[in-house]
Amino acid sequence: MSSDALGESGTVAGAAEESLKQYMASHRPAVEAALAEACADQPGMPTRLAEAIRYAVLAPGKRLRPVLTIMAAEACGGSVASAMPAAVSVELIHAYSLIHDDLPAMDDDDLRRGRPTTHIEFDEATAILAGDALQSMAFAHLHCHAVDDTQAAAWIGTLAIAAGPSGLVGGQADDLDAEKHTVDDFGGPEAARTHLEAIHHRKTGALFTACAAMGAISAGADQRAVSALTNYARAFGLAFQITDDLLDCTSTDEQLGKRTGKDDGRGKLTYPGLMGLDRARAHAEAMIRTAHESLELFGTAGQRLRNLADFVLERTN
Amino acid sequence: MSSDALGESGTVAGAAEESLKQYMASHRPAVEAALAEACADQPGMPTRLAEAIRYAVLAPGKRLRPVLTIMAAEACGGSVASAMPAAVSVELIHAYSLIHDDLPAMDDDDLRRGRPTTHIEFDEATAILAGDALQSMAFAHLHCHAVDDTQAAAWIGTLAIAAGPSGLVGGQADDLDAEKHTVDDFGGPEAARTHLEAIHHRKTGALFTACAAMGAISAGADQRAVSALTNYARAFGLAFQITDDLLDCTSTDEQLGKRTGKDDGRGKLTYPGLMGLDRARAHAEAMIRTAHESLELFGTAGQRLRNLADFVLERTN
Repeated sequence: MSSDALGESGTVAGAAEESLKQYMASHRPAVEAALAEACADQPGMPTRLAEAIRYAVLAPGKRLRPVLTIMAAEACGGSVASAMPAAVSVELIHAYSLIHDDLPAMDDDDLRRGRPTTHIEFDEATAILAGDALQSMAFAHLHCHAVDDTQAAAWIGTLAIAAGPSGLVGGQADDLDAEKHTVDDFGGPEAARTHLEAIHHRKTGALFTACAAMGAISAGADQRAVSALTNYARAFGLAFQITDDLLDCTSTDEQLGKRTGKDDGRGKLTYPGLMGLDRARAHAEAMIRTAHESLELFGTAGQRLRNLADFVLERTN
Repeated sequence: MSSDALGESGTVAGAAEESLKQYMASHRPAVEAALAEACADQPGMPTRLAEAIRYAVLAPGKRLRPVLTIMAAEACGGSVASAMPAAVSVELIHAYSLIHDDLPAMDDDDLRRGRPTTHIEFDEATAILAGDALQSMAFAHLHCHAVDDTQAAAWIGTLAIAAGPSGLVGGQADDLDAEKHTVDDFGGPEAARTHLEAIHHRKTGALFTACAAMGAISAGADQRAVSALTNYARAFGLAFQITDDLLDCTSTDEQLGKRTGKDDGRGKLTYPGLMGLDRARAHAEAMIRTAHESLELFGTAGQRLRNLADFVLERTN
């Protein structure tokens, strides 16, 4: 390890974090360029709709899902370029889900990534349609950029199921529904936590799992590798969600670029609310250990994915 | 021709209409069963979301898009069964687009097919999510039911582009935007009609065109047949939209099962509004002639598609 790779703390953990940041920074231009190209004007695409699509997709963001997709491909011996269509398509689905989640009839958020949400910046109809268009665009993008029909079908099948009523959309529906219930309605804190976990495995977990599987498909990986990466992403996704809940409790609007403290205000089920801050954090740590264990198969090729899992946890320190 | 095939009028045209009605009635059970199966509960699918999806998809309807898909397949020598996955998926996309079009932020309709719209019967969040889920389900359905990856990719590519920002969604965005403008803003009635035509070629035409192309793909048809059917569907779609405008002017709520006279009330661009009733009807007739001419290649195998085109026009008599 060169001394250049050492982070500010000068520790091994600091070096891993620094290396991850460099990795993410080095891949960002290619991801951003591919996203911009995917959202470029097409004949027949209304100007205002195109602007809303680009406003939502090209907003500043960590690009965690594209990075996870690319890392999964690389862990299986695939190239960044081979994974880029999958990386773009998951980010388009993610952007659509954020636009729709923020709508007045849903989470009613006016701030996202430090900027007005799409329905505030444009209008509600345009926001609904931009989300609808992005979902189609994700599938069209995979179809157009796959190396062959077999890859297109595998990618599209994985993403369509993850985005559907048993995945992303189902999780969001149950999440909204849970706001109408008390912890006692679910049968107490433990049962409520089980329900919350089932929500997150779909609302955020399904798309993370799709990233990992689609990255592996990019590399032509075998089923064993796909399963291992799926297990990793499932644990990773849950840890991500728990830390999101923790950040909502402990950060300010300015730090996160979105409204904080809302979860508690609307009686949402959250890990800190059900388990307390310390136990919630310990649960996230346990998930990260599970994520690490899932990567055994990959040896050193899985190191970046390990660093990414650690990074999720570090957000709350 | 047997005398049983003669319609009430006892004319050849009446016989064709009667034969078409029998055809549609005979295929309806298989289409309805396939739609019900596509919307059946899946593990992880929230109950209320599933109910909203079935409420929207299994509502009484003509199933014009599935019928067009099946007829296109049959014109190319394909079977009903081979076209059913495509027929189902276009109807899922159509159902999603109706749910979202009816939302308060869009067309704000409370009645559809004689029943409360999905956001009235359930709630706005559930309606948005049901639409979102249906779009994913359409692509997942094609992936799961294609005979091979080549067919899956061709079907999905066709549908994803038709449903996207240059198709269905783009047409709806421009249609909403047109409400904010006067005919003079577009440069007078002729220019406004050109704009209106561009809206309809995307808002309704793109999905009809996808039906025809996907039906042809079901049958493994060559590019010449796909092109001919695409031309047919493009003209058919426009005639359908013009007659829809005519019906909005001349029918009651009870006859159509939805709010009528709304187009005029909100200053929407319509064919009767721009051309008058008689010229609008003549334009629809011209489109039906174009649809007929597009079918020359198919000889008698195209007869059902000809009858279907005539049926669209007959709605306004």
